[in-house]
Amino acid sequence: MSTTGSTLTRKQQVPVGAQQLHIAMVAPPYFDVPPAAYGGIETVVADLVDALVARGHRVTLIGAGRHSTRAQRFLSTYDIGPADRLGEPMPEMVHAAKVASFLDTLDADVIHDHTMVGPLMARGRLTPTVVTAHGPVHGDPGEFYRALGDTVKLVAISNAQRSSAPDLAWLATVHNAIRAETFPYRAEKDNYAFFLGRFHPEKAPHLAIDAARAAGMPIVLAGKCSEPIERAYYAREIEPRIGPDVTIAGVAGAVTKRLLLASAACMIFPIQWEEPFGLVVIEAMACGTPVVALRRGAAPELIVHGQTGIVVDEPTELADAIAPALRLDPAMCRKHVETAFTVEVMAEGYEAAYRRALAGATDPWLTVQNGVRGSVQTTAPLLGWPAGTRNLSPSN
Amino acid sequence: MSTTGSTLTRKQQVPVGAQQLHIAMVAPPYFDVPPAAYGGIETVVADLVDALVARGHRVTLIGAGRHSTRAQRFLSTYDIGPADRLGEPMPEMVHAAKVASFLDTLDADVIHDHTMVGPLMARGRLTPTVVTAHGPVHGDPGEFYRALGDTVKLVAISNAQRSSAPDLAWLATVHNAIRAETFPYRAEKDNYAFFLGRFHPEKAPHLAIDAARAAGMPIVLAGKCSEPIERAYYAREIEPRIGPDVTIAGVAGAVTKRLLLASAACMIFPIQWEEPFGLVVIEAMACGTPVVALRRGAAPELIVHGQTGIVVDEPTELADAIAPALRLDPAMCRKHVETAFTVEVMAEGYEAAYRRALAGATDPWLTVQNGVRGSVQTTAPLLGWPAGTRNLSPSN
Repeated sequence: MSTTGSTLTRKQQVPVGAQQLHIAMVAPPYFDVPPAAYGGIETVVADLVDALVARGHRVTLIGAGRHSTRAQRFLSTYDIGPADRLGEPMPEMVHAAKVASFLDTLDADVIHDHTMVGPLMARGRLTPTVVTAHGPVHGDPGEFYRALGDTVKLVAISNAQRSSAPDLAWLATVHNAIRAETFPYRAEKDNYAFFLGRFHPEKAPHLAIDAARAAGMPIVLAGKCSEPIERAYYAREIEPRIGPDVTIAGVAGAVTKRLLLASAACMIFPIQWEEPFGLVVIEAMACGTPVVALRRGAAPELIVHGQTGIVVDEPTELADAIAPALRLDPAMCRKHVETAFTVEVMAEGYEAAYRRALAGATDPWLTVQNGVRGSVQTTAPLLGWPAGTRNLSPSN
Repeated sequence: MSTTGSTLTRKQQVPVGAQQLHIAMVAPPYFDVPPAAYGGIETVVADLVDALVARGHRVTLIGAGRHSTRAQRFLSTYDIGPADRLGEPMPEMVHAAKVASFLDTLDADVIHDHTMVGPLMARGRLTPTVVTAHGPVHGDPGEFYRALGDTVKLVAISNAQRSSAPDLAWLATVHNAIRAETFPYRAEKDNYAFFLGRFHPEKAPHLAIDAARAAGMPIVLAGKCSEPIERAYYAREIEPRIGPDVTIAGVAGAVTKRLLLASAACMIFPIQWEEPFGLVVIEAMACGTPVVALRRGAAPELIVHGQTGIVVDEPTELADAIAPALRLDPAMCRKHVETAFTVEVMAEGYEAAYRRALAGATDPWLTVQNGVRGSVQTTAPLLGWPAGTRNLSPSN
């Protein structure tokens, strides 16, 4: 409780743009950070933590289970993340309540929350809360973010996502990133098109089969097919299309996935919904594999049309896009990811977002006086830093 | 924002035990208040609101859809409650966020929250939040309430519930209530035992059949049987037991339910889990129908053993308990409900709980100074009531 004073002094002497930040990074509760296998958000969080520490910041990571990041401190809400209960609300609710009490013991400058329930706790908090919208922002989640109002600052993972709900309290757009060096680059391709994703109407692998077949190219498909809707879709749309030119690779593990990605002549991404990002697109390009995609969601934002892939408007155009895609330079695909989607670029984007969130907050002296952010004009004298205000720093 | 001052003055002049309270009552978002059909919590909330208003209090009801209570004000988060999405987390999350912003516009003395997600929002709030634990408090919900710590004051709906998690921040036990006058009283009984509840292993209607059959008594069973676990249980345990002495009445509507309850010679309540209350038990007694029950959960707390029912320890004892139950006085059963489980008794219990919650908060002047409840000892002068503190009243 008595450390705030010294933090204060140090920060007052450093220009805002250069000062070290203490970031409380809140991961979801289901998996280790980074995850052993499944867990896209936890992978992004781990990469972001490491890159922020490399940039000189102090990160307290709050998650579940174990971590193997460079965070200076790790606080865990569950000894083992309840991975088998992914999607259930209760683990996130318990997590949110525990995280809130952890945050009381920190002197974080900014809180970066990657969960869904957690952002509810930002209301009335003195420290600004930055929230990454990892999923869709229309329908239910959109209504939720809208109801949160200006209690949080939202970060979009693509401009496409952001423009689908432009009225939300957006602070920035920061693209997801991957570590390209963990993906094998291969310039010599085998003669197959590749589809990677769930067997689901929204991912529409049947359109990938149709396009490859029309282009006279074999296709390999890999992805999850376990939920009722996925199985029904598979029986209805995929099974009737299976022929000698179609290979179903099942759920590809990390190694198989990379092998199939790197060897493919192209990836087909016939997305049928406004997917806010599409990590497989940048994974394919990292392997030097161009992407043939429909112009939905973030696809046109991730692919440089005519250089790292071909983006078309209609499913019927996919087949004709394959030949030009095969003529694209694999090195260009790789280079695009190494330039635009690195964890360093992502960390830089988030750091700028944090500083913008901090700059948007009100005079801390007023906040101390009134306990409600930006509520009042007063000339009352400063009474010192009482206990219970240790989350406060002069930059928020 | 300027009304706080006058509220303040009025309340200062009235003794704490007698003063009118302004209660913000937060119902779940799924149904109207009271509900048209299904919705146990909403029924209790509606009765409580009406009884509190009758006691002279001011109630702002926050819910979804429409209300037909005596609340002086109603704020709705959804035009139509998302009843088809009962159990999904998102409607409760949206509801919680909207409720929190509604609460900012109120000068409530106390918030009474009946939802699951809502209590998360109590953290850091100046107005005390009383939460009724309507469901179990072991396992997941227990962990959740524990994580909330002292940010909320919990009300148990039975001592049995409370004793299953004695370490939680309990403020009081307040039994659920019914309006006995809405249940038909009948002293002359027909010759059947009655089971009312879901066809579920936890409710164990098969034990009711076994007991009635062993006692030579026909049995009627009514209740929901729609979810996979309920259907599987029915096929496994009920179907093989069906005979000429067993009548399955399906899901009984409100009218049929009351008719069957009132005409039954007794109700069998062979509960197999620590049910925190058991509304059907008091409904049966209100109809003058004694209850034969297992000693689990709140059953022994609701039934006066030997007067309004017979409570036994083992399923094998249920059959022998039926004959003595039939000798009990229906008038005594009715009278017990009219004495112990009236909405007036419930409202009195909650009012006492609210006053206890208010008395437990710290000196409001200190709270104004520091913005964090009970955080600091200071002799600093009072600066007046700034904007943004309008939820504050001298009694919290």
